[in-house]
Amino acid sequence: MSDDDRLARVALTWLTEPGTRSVHRLVEQLGAGGALELLLDGGAPEERLRAAVAARGRDGDARAVAADALARAARLGARLVTPTDGEWPATVEHLRRLALPGATRRVDVETAPPLCFWVRGGWPLGDALDRAVSVVGARAATPYGVHVATELGYGLADRDWTVVSGGAFGIDAAAHRGALNAGGLTVAVLACGIDRPYPMGNAALFDRIGEAGLLVSEWPPGAEPLRPRFLVRNRVIAAATRGTVLVEASARSGATQTLNRALAAGRHAMVVPGPVTSAMSVGAHELLREHPSARLVTGVAHVLEEVGRIGADLAPPARAPQRPRDLLDDEATQVLESMPRRGATGVDRLAARAGVDVRTALRKLSLLEELGLVRRRADGYALATGAAPASGT
Amino acid sequence: MSDDDRLARVALTWLTEPGTRSVHRLVEQLGAGGALELLLDGGAPEERLRAAVAARGRDGDARAVAADALARAARLGARLVTPTDGEWPATVEHLRRLALPGATRRVDVETAPPLCFWVRGGWPLGDALDRAVSVVGARAATPYGVHVATELGYGLADRDWTVVSGGAFGIDAAAHRGALNAGGLTVAVLACGIDRPYPMGNAALFDRIGEAGLLVSEWPPGAEPLRPRFLVRNRVIAAATRGTVLVEASARSGATQTLNRALAAGRHAMVVPGPVTSAMSVGAHELLREHPSARLVTGVAHVLEEVGRIGADLAPPARAPQRPRDLLDDEATQVLESMPRRGATGVDRLAARAGVDVRTALRKLSLLEELGLVRRRADGYALATGAAPASGT
Repeated sequence: MSDDDRLARVALTWLTEPGTRSVHRLVEQLGAGGALELLLDGGAPEERLRAAVAARGRDGDARAVAADALARAARLGARLVTPTDGEWPATVEHLRRLALPGATRRVDVETAPPLCFWVRGGWPLGDALDRAVSVVGARAATPYGVHVATELGYGLADRDWTVVSGGAFGIDAAAHRGALNAGGLTVAVLACGIDRPYPMGNAALFDRIGEAGLLVSEWPPGAEPLRPRFLVRNRVIAAATRGTVLVEASARSGATQTLNRALAAGRHAMVVPGPVTSAMSVGAHELLREHPSARLVTGVAHVLEEVGRIGADLAPPARAPQRPRDLLDDEATQVLESMPRRGATGVDRLAARAGVDVRTALRKLSLLEELGLVRRRADGYALATGAAPASGT
Repeated sequence: MSDDDRLARVALTWLTEPGTRSVHRLVEQLGAGGALELLLDGGAPEERLRAAVAARGRDGDARAVAADALARAARLGARLVTPTDGEWPATVEHLRRLALPGATRRVDVETAPPLCFWVRGGWPLGDALDRAVSVVGARAATPYGVHVATELGYGLADRDWTVVSGGAFGIDAAAHRGALNAGGLTVAVLACGIDRPYPMGNAALFDRIGEAGLLVSEWPPGAEPLRPRFLVRNRVIAAATRGTVLVEASARSGATQTLNRALAAGRHAMVVPGPVTSAMSVGAHELLREHPSARLVTGVAHVLEEVGRIGADLAPPARAPQRPRDLLDDEATQVLESMPRRGATGVDRLAARAGVDVRTALRKLSLLEELGLVRRRADGYALATGAAPASGT
């Protein structure tokens, strides 16, 4: 989509915190530019949102702030990714339907999909998240937890799974490090600007992640790691991966909330148990007791056993080997399905049957020929052997 | 029942290992004496059993061996408990219905109720097992497991629950010790004669249990702790208590088999998790992964939360507050229900309506008067206010 759309998404994220459901709905109805205009004109559908926009607006001009952020990102070698980009991770769109049972707190209600991501690192974001598992847990992890998280990070990366976490001290850092040590791909989803990843103590780790993996954030460069942002961010960690593994957590910790979001999103929710004598395993054991669908795992093999399956809310990846026909766009499919089952036909007749113009028909026929689905003969075009139309198979 | 029955049960246990289903069925059909005669006459219904009886028979006269065992037990201050004794634990009769999924091994199939128990210690066996929880686990327990089992034993005993285990090294011993340290009741269910409890290294512990709790075995004094007997014994540990807690277990250990028996018997099956890095927790985690009805517990509070509820196979205790009427025997209830709803009536007429003799009617009326349910008036007996018969409420 246009630069306007991109700028508007950045401006909207700055004006209102990510995840705000009413903003996401406005963008769907009016486009990002229209939604931004409405909000700046004081037309936000909720009083709270109107006040928030007005307050931010007094700090600066939203479009100018957004333009600055984009310029700053360009200087950092970072990029903005929006839903129309090829690398947009489709899985985060499932957040549309996310509903946390008994949600009353703002962070539990405002769990709409992100409007954009800031990304630093060479991999296309969507590809990196295609086969990904989150590993989360306590910042004040014990040596036991750090050991387990490192092993998990290493083992998953070693089997070509991307390890996603939040870049925090403790379990998060151990999981990232394990993945890096395996020479694998790891993604840190931050709750602040990717130019100032938090915590500072993990700066060297963030540098390695930025080089070998991805640093990702919904917040623009320069944004501060405010406390509520971690919980807002957790919905992305939960939704963007096939499953989340909780390694250590005290009672009611942020990590247990990530797992609750994974459960609500229909992702695989996995928990590593620990000594019952450890306060850092209380949250883990609580989750296992309270959620029958949270699965106890003791290592990589168990995790792979889970995420290897298809979760209820995930688009099922093609099970059958991909055939050329699966790659066709609508028009090419129409042309292919309009081919006579026996004998050949001319382009004009085919275009008429397929409901496309002759120029398009010729373009699609050349593609179909390339894919070995159609043969050009003296008397026109014919189906190649074994290429009966999908509707006839 | 008669001394003959008791002697026959001892002889049958000596001739055939405890738990043999066909022997238990014969006892139900013919009585213990009849079953013994049939077996000694070579009439066992299965070839394997016939051979086993014949082999044992060459070692001695079954009745003489049984008489010796009874005499030996008397000298030890031990007693034989059979199903007609008041202290027989009714819960072990549920073993009639126990069926282990996919059972093919002898120890998984031959899980019939015991024919008798040898008991050493002052408490009536049934009373001791009335509010009881089993705590089982690895012999090669880690300090972590020993700590947890000791705490569980202590905590359960402290709350007036009997702690049942197998007297083995490791988890078993820790659970018994915890209970003893709390000044509570603990029962060791042995797989050998109660005069030679195994292992010898726990001799001092067995002495304490024999004084403050109970040593129990299905095998007669002098019986050796043969390896298969431990698994046979485990069905009793599982069935005689409201639930079994597994603390530490390597993969496929005897303790996990006790828990499987608890699950099959409809008892509460509870598992304490541990570090995933410990080989001694592998069996525990396996059970939690494989059995949705096995419950993760981290301490006494969780255990009590489970066993405090009514298990499928347990007689439900009265939920409503007990009223005087609930204490009445059948005759008293009949008399009460025969009272006219209004006005008074004479004893003769009441006795006739209730279908009891006058003497009984008078006795029951005096009880009902005592309980405040009936009033004696000049014109006979009348219901006290608020004491309408149960059928009328």
